[in-house]
Parts: sequence; structure tokens; C-alpha cells
Amino acid sequence: MTAEALLKPETSDLEAEMQAIGHAARAAAAVLATTPAETKVTALRAAAAALRAGLPAILAANRQDMTAARARGLTPALLDRLELSQARVEAMARGVEEIAEQPDPVGRVLARWERPNGLIIERVSVPLGVIGIVYESRPNVTADAGALCLKSGNAAILRGGSESFHSSGAILAALHKGLAAAGLPETCLQRPPSTDRAAVGHLLRMHGLVDVIVPRGGKGLIARVLAEARVPVLAHLEGNCHVYLHAASDPAKALAIAVNAKMRRTSICGAAETLLVDRSAAEALLPPILDALAEAGCELRGDAVVQGLDPRVKPASEADWDTEFLDAVLAIKTVEGLDAALAHIDRHGSHHTDAIVTEDPQAAETFLARVDSAIVLHNASTQFADGGEFGMGAEIGIATGRLHARGPVGANELTSYKYRVRGQGQTRP
Amino acid sequence: MTAEALLKPETSDLEAEMQAIGHAARAAAAVLATTPAETKVTALRAAAAALRAGLPAILAANRQDMTAARARGLTPALLDRLELSQARVEAMARGVEEIAEQPDPVGRVLARWERPNGLIIERVSVPLGVIGIVYESRPNVTADAGALCLKSGNAAILRGGSESFHSSGAILAALHKGLAAAGLPETCLQRPPSTDRAAVGHLLRMHGLVDVIVPRGGKGLIARVLAEARVPVLAHLEGNCHVYLHAASDPAKALAIAVNAKMRRTSICGAAETLLVDRSAAEALLPPILDALAEAGCELRGDAVVQGLDPRVKPASEADWDTEFLDAVLAIKTVEGLDAALAHIDRHGSHHTDAIVTEDPQAAETFLARVDSAIVLHNASTQFADGGEFGMGAEIGIATGRLHARGPVGANELTSYKYRVRGQGQTRP
Repeated sequence: MTAEALLKPETSDLEAEMQAIGHAARAAAAVLATTPAETKVTALRAAAAALRAGLPAILAANRQDMTAARARGLTPALLDRLELSQARVEAMARGVEEIAEQPDPVGRVLARWERPNGLIIERVSVPLGVIGIVYESRPNVTADAGALCLKSGNAAILRGGSESFHSSGAILAALHKGLAAAGLPETCLQRPPSTDRAAVGHLLRMHGLVDVIVPRGGKGLIARVLAEARVPVLAHLEGNCHVYLHAASDPAKALAIAVNAKMRRTSICGAAETLLVDRSAAEALLPPILDALAEAGCELRGDAVVQGLDPRVKPASEADWDTEFLDAVLAIKTVEGLDAALAHIDRHGSHHTDAIVTEDPQAAETFLARVDSAIVLHNASTQFADGGEFGMGAEIGIATGRLHARGPVGANELTSYKYRVRGQGQTRP
Repeated sequence: MTAEALLKPETSDLEAEMQAIGHAARAAAAVLATTPAETKVTALRAAAAALRAGLPAILAANRQDMTAARARGLTPALLDRLELSQARVEAMARGVEEIAEQPDPVGRVLARWERPNGLIIERVSVPLGVIGIVYESRPNVTADAGALCLKSGNAAILRGGSESFHSSGAILAALHKGLAAAGLPETCLQRPPSTDRAAVGHLLRMHGLVDVIVPRGGKGLIARVLAEARVPVLAHLEGNCHVYLHAASDPAKALAIAVNAKMRRTSICGAAETLLVDRSAAEALLPPILDALAEAGCELRGDAVVQGLDPRVKPASEADWDTEFLDAVLAIKTVEGLDAALAHIDRHGSHHTDAIVTEDPQAAETFLARVDSAIVLHNASTQFADGGEFGMGAEIGIATGRLHARGPVGANELTSYKYRVRGQGQTRP
């Protein structure tokens, strides 16, 4: 570093460094846009091999992060997210290989038609360009998101949590070995030079250099990104998901779906947070469900009717209908039929994932048509809200915005398109 | 208005009024989301009839605007854009009818697949929600954009130029008659209460109420919208379009395409602004083209080689390569082959529309693959950059962003999608 550079304020240096990273990413994106599918597959396979070969280095880097994290007093949950093991690194390598084997998302002819004047018009998928990923402590996002961006021909700037800086660096080094093996520039996958939080702010304002930001993490992170970003964001702020048990529910399906939607994993965005039940069917449907949930360790908060059915049910507050618990807590409300259920979801939902349980096909179709969420289900658990469960392979997240992609965002959703028009000399009259 | 309201500062009043308009639009969007296709067709046909029946009122309102515009000294070009006639109103009505007869863009099953567990997943098109349109003096945008939004099931807030306030109001009144005839609320199509420019600022910041902004107008307007908007924008800032005459061009095609791309209409975004020519072919290809352009009244600005071919060619400045003239002016540059042409377009283009003229299929494919523009053409005029010419029916504009829609934005591009999942009681293992 020159004396002149040392005299500059650090933030200005960081901004310049982030700009340089952005320009390098744009240049890499131009290379990736026309990189053949096989080259990307080679890079991803080599990256998976480098992750396995780099196991000792990755675990050593992770121990550095874990030591610092323990010293800073991180919670056991956060420490668990941060910690890597041989099994977790192997899972990462397998994930990268699975992404490698997916069909290439670039160059798909999405539509093709001929005009009366003989012009042949094709809409062809192309990469988005440069994707900024902002995430928290899980270091494996570096591998997942990096691999998905590379597969879809996008350059990525990966800004992980400061707690995982060394782990992510070691993982990124393995991905770089993969790029090098395929003759692709390292600048396809970059990260900020330090853990300085100001890098996130710069990344969110790199209009013209970054095409889209994908945040991965808690509501606080997503809210900050949505508020500060000056480039488009693909994200969901929260998943306040509902399961609605219609009067014509099959009791066995209602039980299985309600318990699975809440309890299979309580920390994922597709976990149910509120159970709605038709009042006329509450007495018949709810008791076994409340029983199963309570036995599984779920805290139950219900309205007066629900409280009357089981002494373990605590009173629900108004705030509970708007809360994404992400925990073993369920709000339960009785409603006066389908319209009331739709009104409740419209008022309190987050446009993420909502399900109806019913044997009445008309009620099901009304629910599927009228609930304005990225994913609506009939007689299935909300926990299916997942790119893998949709058959998309890996996902980078779930989007609840209405522009571009909605629902699970996989490699195909990380593409844009262009029109290729072929003529024989046509001019416009 | 109450005394209390009168005491409030006017801007705060306007903001509250815009918020009320936004909330009413959201409610209307919820109605439109499940409005049957036939109802929308009824509304559009009735709106077309009301435009014809309302001709005297529309022309009277337009005279008011024209008088005020003349008093304010608007340029003849602006006055021409503002002026309505029986023929222009008839063209508007026919445009609305054409939009009515298009296939319904909502409820299309874009993809459908079954999972091994029996879940049936459908991706179905749904309206975007609420669209804000910000435009300038052409009052016909009120009818075009309003009809396209309605057809695609979206509520719209239409903010036209203050010069056309009365004309747009009379057109909107006709659209409201169409909505009423179909039993749809007037709030499907609204506009700000006054010509106060602050309304645009409020509209651009109505995150959560407005889903997307579509600006229509000059570069100044688009740049303001892109800078100020806190909701997504579908737009193009400029169309600095190129025609590249490859050494293997057919001379007749090169002549026809170069002249048409520049001169058919010079004021549209798809008009060519720079002509690139392989140096080795310049002497053979250019003289008849320069001749035809000069005779058609085009000002020619070229590099030294081009100047040497025709005394009417003035020297081009560096700034000319970056200028969207939107006028009878063409910048002409000789290049050392395909790679140099690609580099020039990459550096100076605006990612809108670019064309190659060549009989060499490999050169054509390289150009189509490597030029990073919304529309790339081989042996056809850039003036085909238009939703109508693409066979989409009406368009609301052309987008050069990479998220959501790219190229012509028609009714289909004004939709999002949701996932409808049908099960038989599935839970996630």
C-alpha cells in the first residue's frame, strides 16, 4: 500500500475496492455469458473435487472462525450453523456436483415463432449478469450460491457473515480451483476484501455493476437489504404460512398435514405459523391435532373456541396472527368458512406459502385462485415450499416479490432472456 | 373539506390522496385478479365504444389543453404530440378493441409437472398487481396503457403530463364507462387528483402499494424515474442502436437495412444511431448507402475513411458514438472486423437493439450470441424493435433491464406467476 493510499479514509478505499470488484465481475460475466455448458460442468466438478481435497484447510479455517465466535459469545444455534465437519463439507461437494449435472439453464429457446414477413423470432435464456449474494453465518451458502450462479452463467459477489470469513474464504479457494481447471477467470466468484460491514452498503448501491441482489438470512438482514438496495432484490421478507382446515377436510389428512407443516422443521420459511379451522368442524377435527402437536412439544395459542377444546391451549394475542415464530409455536384460529379464511390470509399473510385441506374440489379451486401467494397448495404440507421438493435441484432462495421470479429461485430463475431475430433482408414498411 | 384539512400543508394532502389512491388500486387489483376474461373483454369493448361516443367531449377537453399549451409556448413537435383529432381518437378506440381481442394473459398454465410423490405442480400466470404509468404529453397513452393493464388484470395509476390533463381526463372518463358496463370498479384505472408534479414522487415511492412503474417518455423523464423510484421499474433509458455491415454483407440488403433502420422513423427508440462497416468492405458497400441517406435528408458524421468516400460526410466526434440522435443524423464508423464491431457495441451500446448484415452464417451466430442487447437481429432492420411487429399486439414499452421482462413489454409481460400445487394428503418426509 502506498503512503498516499494509507492517508485516505478507509471507507473510501473500500468503496473503490468494491467498485473494482464490480467491474471485474462485469468482465467475468461477459466471459460466462458465452461459456459453453461443458466448461461450466468441468468447473463445477473440479470445484467439488477441490472441496474434498481441501477438507483439512477448510476445517482449519472453520476452527479459526469457531474459536473467534465462541470468544464473542455466539449462541449455540449460531455456532451450530457456523460449524463445519467432514460430513458437511462432503454434503457441500455433493451439492455442487448435483448442480453440475442439472440441464444448462442458458441458451434455452423459450419460444420461437415466425412472422408473416418471414422474420423468425426466438426468445432465448441468457444469464442475468452479476449477482450479489448477502448472507449470514452458514458458510455452505458460499458453495451453494456460488455453484448456482456459475451454472446459470452469472458472475457472483459473495458477501457472507463476518463470523464465517475464514471458512468462506477456504471454500471460495476451492471454487477458484474449479474455475482455474476449466480455464475460467477467478473473478467469476469474488468476495469483499474484508469483513467490514460497509461492504454490504456499497454492494447494495452498485447500480450498473450488480444486476440483482439475493439476500439469505434472517428478517433483519432481508429488511436492511430491501430498504437500502438500489438494485433489484429477489427475496422474501418472511413466511407467515397458513394451513386452513376446511369443514370438508379429511380428518386423517388434516392431522398429518397440520402436524407436518408446523413440526417437521420449525425454522424454515415454509413452516406453518397459523392454523385456521372452520368453526363448524373444529370440535371434530382439532382435538387429535392439538394432542399430536402438544405431544411433539409445540406451544399452542388459540382463540376462545380452541382454548375450550384443550386445556394446553394458551390465549392467542392479536400479534400472534402476524408472527413468523420459526419455532415450535402455533397460532390457531377458528373461522366462519372459506371467505373468512381468505380474508384472514389476505390481511395477515406474507404471500409466501398457504395450504387448504379439503375434500371439496370447489373450495380447493377457490382457495388456489384467490390466495395471492407465491405457492398455494391443496391437501399438501406447506413444508414442500422448496426448490428441491419442486424438482428444480438446488435453490438460492424463495421470492415473494411479483417481478421476475416468484417462489423457489433455482438456476433457471437466475436467467433473463433476449430476442434473436433472423431475417433475409427485411425492412419495416 | 374540513377546516382541519384546509390547515394542512398541501403536499401532505397530496401524499395522503396518493396513498388513498394506492390503497384503492390494491383493492381493485384483488378484484381484477379473479375477474373472468369475458368481463375484461366486455369492459374494453365498452370503453372503445365510449371513446367513440365521447369524441366531442374528448376534442373539447383537448382544445383546452392545446390553448394552454400554445399560451405556454410549447414547441410545434410537442403541440403535435398533444393534439387529438377524430382520426386519432378512432385509432385509440381501435387500439383498445385490438387489445380486447388478444388472448387472455392471465391463468395461462406456463408449466405443469408431477413429482414422484404424486404432487402436481403448475406455474400459472397471474397479474402483477398495481402498475404506475408515468408519461408525457401524448394523451393516447392513457387509453393504450390503461387497456393493456386492464387486459392483464392489473390496476393502474396513470400519471400523464400536465399539458394533457384535460384530454387524459376525458379519455379516462370513457375507460371508466367501459369498467362500469362490465360491473368493475372505477378504481381499476385512476390518476392523481391534480397536475402537481409532486404526485410523481409519491407514486415512485409507494412501495407495497405499487408493484411496478412503467415510464413512457424522453430520457429526462426515464432518468428521473430510475433515480427516484423505490419500486421496480420496467423501462429503457435510451436506444443507441447499431447496424453492423459485415464484410460478407449482401450489398442490396446492406443498403435497404441501413437506410430503413435510420430513416423510416428517426424518433423511435429502435432507430439506428450508428452504422458500423468492416473497413475492407467500406469502399464497396458505403457509397450507395451514403448517397441514399444524404438524399433522404440524413446528416452524415463519419470517421476519416468514411469522410474520404463522400464529401457530404462531416467528421464524427467521440461523443457521437454515445449519442441517441432520435433525428436524421447518423454516426458512421469503419471497424477492423467482427470483434472490433462487438467491442464498439459493448462499449457504446445501450443494450436495446442491434443488427448485423451478413451472408456469413457463422459471423451472424457470433453476433447474435455475443451482443448483450434485448433484441439482436440478423439481416433485418432495427426498426422491427416493437411489440406489434413481434406479434404481441400492443406494447406498453421496451425494457432493457435484465429482471422480469426484456424487449417489448406486452400484456403477457405485465403478468407474474404463482405455483398451484395439488396433493392427496402429502407430507414432507
